[in-house]
Amino acid sequence: MVERNWLVLTDGWLMSRNAKTAHGVLRYGRDPIAAVLDTEHQGHDLSSVMPSLERAAPIVGSVSEGIDAGATSLLLGVATPGGWIPDHWRPLLKEALEASMEIANGLHGFLGDDPELVELAERHGGRLWDVRKPPDGIPLNSGLALQVPQRIVGTVGSDCAVGKMTVSLELTEVARAKGWSPEFIATGQTGILIAGKGIAVDRVISDFVSGAAEQLVVDADERSDILLVEGQGGLWHPAYSGVTLGLLHGSAPEVLVLVHRAGREAIEEPPYTKLPPLDHVVRTYEDIASWVRPCKVACVALNCGGMSAEEASSHIQAAEELTGLPAGDVWRGDAEKLWAAVEEALSR
Amino acid sequence: MVERNWLVLTDGWLMSRNAKTAHGVLRYGRDPIAAVLDTEHQGHDLSSVMPSLERAAPIVGSVSEGIDAGATSLLLGVATPGGWIPDHWRPLLKEALEASMEIANGLHGFLGDDPELVELAERHGGRLWDVRKPPDGIPLNSGLALQVPQRIVGTVGSDCAVGKMTVSLELTEVARAKGWSPEFIATGQTGILIAGKGIAVDRVISDFVSGAAEQLVVDADERSDILLVEGQGGLWHPAYSGVTLGLLHGSAPEVLVLVHRAGREAIEEPPYTKLPPLDHVVRTYEDIASWVRPCKVACVALNCGGMSAEEASSHIQAAEELTGLPAGDVWRGDAEKLWAAVEEALSR
Repeated sequence: MVERNWLVLTDGWLMSRNAKTAHGVLRYGRDPIAAVLDTEHQGHDLSSVMPSLERAAPIVGSVSEGIDAGATSLLLGVATPGGWIPDHWRPLLKEALEASMEIANGLHGFLGDDPELVELAERHGGRLWDVRKPPDGIPLNSGLALQVPQRIVGTVGSDCAVGKMTVSLELTEVARAKGWSPEFIATGQTGILIAGKGIAVDRVISDFVSGAAEQLVVDADERSDILLVEGQGGLWHPAYSGVTLGLLHGSAPEVLVLVHRAGREAIEEPPYTKLPPLDHVVRTYEDIASWVRPCKVACVALNCGGMSAEEASSHIQAAEELTGLPAGDVWRGDAEKLWAAVEEALSR
Repeated sequence: MVERNWLVLTDGWLMSRNAKTAHGVLRYGRDPIAAVLDTEHQGHDLSSVMPSLERAAPIVGSVSEGIDAGATSLLLGVATPGGWIPDHWRPLLKEALEASMEIANGLHGFLGDDPELVELAERHGGRLWDVRKPPDGIPLNSGLALQVPQRIVGTVGSDCAVGKMTVSLELTEVARAKGWSPEFIATGQTGILIAGKGIAVDRVISDFVSGAAEQLVVDADERSDILLVEGQGGLWHPAYSGVTLGLLHGSAPEVLVLVHRAGREAIEEPPYTKLPPLDHVVRTYEDIASWVRPCKVACVALNCGGMSAEEASSHIQAAEELTGLPAGDVWRGDAEKLWAAVEEALSR
């Protein structure tokens, strides 16, 4: 695996939701952070600008300052219009490649399709990492995930963008603290940048989604004893339900954690499909996953972002009453409670 | 739409299951058949060699004989190892292109990736049609299928390769005879060759499967009043369930026809997932489709291939008792019965 020391480009968007890839890597990344590149906040430290990330790093104004801070990889950490690389980034990218850096890119547009950047990387010994580009040779699914020695725990969601990756990562940390040897299995671009490996399953040819999920499970570190598979999409979102199901069936989890945005009654995007009550969501995921391997939802990870403590607590209590399962918000310190429920489900 | 007169290449495999693409086009294709190219059976007529196809056409031994019979398009109608174009076809392909023919290819390997063939096609005004290659610019799903004026009827299956395409085509013929203006919506390579248009949804990047399904529905002939959407895969097949669901949610049918291989109790490929009883299969498809739009299964199309009349009839009766729905085998003349059930479901 490549050794990295990140220079995280946020390009003035450090505090925006557009920088959620950067936020993910800054909060959970396994590789060290040399510096953040953001002219809006340069001269400050990340720990004072965004204390919630729990990470100290200088914020610099240029690639060369990042290199001076020890950076070896430039991370393009901001969503851009249409997912393409904006022209005004080009001088930065060239400067990084001329300094033999790696550039890691989670956007839809691929650096490897740009002849000038490819030529520069080759000439200077730099590297272009298009995180969303699927590897060659993904097989069709053949049920191999049923045969791996590790236990398999998946996250699933009632909708997209509710926090499945964060829940998987928080539970991975608790699992490690409890003596497991867990591996977080990344299935989307931010997760891949955090883990240093993975496949963006929504970018794979549809026939091979469950084969990609199976391959991720089969290729997990053999020293691990439990795999936490990052879920994608949601069964009730017609634009993504196919990816959700292919990933679920391909990765063949024994235990699921349902991630739900507290209070949400319909998906957030067109056609605004109505969600069934939470106990029905739980049963549906259990039924559908169990076609491949017997599977139980262990607990409900509620995302109560922006709510008061009372409001969050009332949502958590209501979810527990409705589903009969432990519920909690990992963003409010409930990861241990949820992990206990996962362990309990695994032991059944 | 391109005018075609087919020369169907079966390369000695005319009577084999490997030629199922050829069989589909010969049985259901909307375009005329000039000739079949098969050295094994040359000199005979198709109607005597394979009467079940209900089509007369000379079987010839060379491309030039096919051209003499009026052919304008060479159809590669046989599955090959790995889905690639075998070397011994190259002289045939070159001869066809040098005669300015079109070549239609439903294999995984694309003619358009072969510089020599591309150059020949350009030089002689021929055309290369890689049927499985998705069009550019497929949008993400946004629920537009809910707004088209046509009624939408889908086929779904308990497993892969049980006859969903054939059932859709047979019902399309009955619908037309009954005064509807139906359009068969092709979602796989053989269906596309038959219809002359469509998208092979299993070859689309997974994020865009339901967008492709939506686009097929939205782009249907505006003179049509009912769309018969060819289903793919099966929910219980972990390798294809994602494609099945993306297509189902993207095309948003109001009525489904469940296609089932009589007597099958588990999927035919690894991991040999056990199928639930047929009434449960019906309810599952209804529930899952209804998340996007209220949807009922109208009837069960049983594939009783190879069974005696008594055996088939006993399977049909058992399916009717178990599901409470009309059942029948379109390969044994029950298409009208099933269509009546579809009309009844549409009128509810």
